[in-house]
Amino acid sequence: MNLKKYTDYALRVLIYTGMNKEGELASIKEISDVFDISQHHLGKIVHELTKLDLIVSTRGRYGGIQLARPAEEINVGKVVRLLENDFVLLECFDKGTNHCVISPGCTLKHALNKALQAFFQVLDGYTIKDLITNENELRELMGIK
Amino acid sequence: MNLKKYTDYALRVLIYTGMNKEGELASIKEISDVFDISQHHLGKIVHELTKLDLIVSTRGRYGGIQLARPAEEINVGKVVRLLENDFVLLECFDKGTNHCVISPGCTLKHALNKALQAFFQVLDGYTIKDLITNENELRELMGIK
Repeated sequence: MNLKKYTDYALRVLIYTGMNKEGELASIKEISDVFDISQHHLGKIVHELTKLDLIVSTRGRYGGIQLARPAEEINVGKVVRLLENDFVLLECFDKGTNHCVISPGCTLKHALNKALQAFFQVLDGYTIKDLITNENELRELMGIK
Repeated sequence: MNLKKYTDYALRVLIYTGMNKEGELASIKEISDVFDISQHHLGKIVHELTKLDLIVSTRGRYGGIQLARPAEEINVGKVVRLLENDFVLLECFDKGTNHCVISPGCTLKHALNKALQAFFQVLDGYTIKDLITNENELRELMGIK
């Protein structure tokens, strides 16, 4: 069981961008340098985050990215749900391809659904703001001011 | 986010086998017919379940498989933990390959660890016995007596 690398990187973009003051812009180049992730890959992720209305991107020489809303209004559970569109824990979670004969009477399906709900209930308790309360420590680890 | 097909099929083997009376043996052929999963694939899964001490396999003409312990003693959370050996939700979950600079001070890691614990806390509340309380319904869905 794992999350996509894409989701991991997207959350790092939101954490990094969330540390900027209002109006201050981050660049893909900076994030690429800090996390050693290719600018090409980050570009695609930022494009997706823009489409999801989590990031606002300003083009041009003095352009860059910033959070679309204050960090305390961006919920981590929601972000993970948006980015991970594939929660097929069992074959029966995807009605289109399911051919498990017992699914109409299967308790395992309910157990895993409840487990998934519990998973998200925890993540729903966090916003991007909660992930950057130790901003000074994070800045030091990132090697930025 | 998903579980391996392998885990899904292994749980079906345990559910099917758990419905048998003590001493009654199930065959890979039967399980293959019911769930439309290849016998070859099921053979590998049964081999793994035997190694994990969840299934006892008896060879020979009148051989077959049965649960290694009563169904109420086989915990679903434990089975999923045993079968899914890869819980790398983020890069930092695998210390061997992690190169995320903020991991020593990262709250996201803790949030996802707590979420994963909550996921398993739900599954730990179920045994294989809980998955077959509606045995008659399951037998009907499987098309067996």
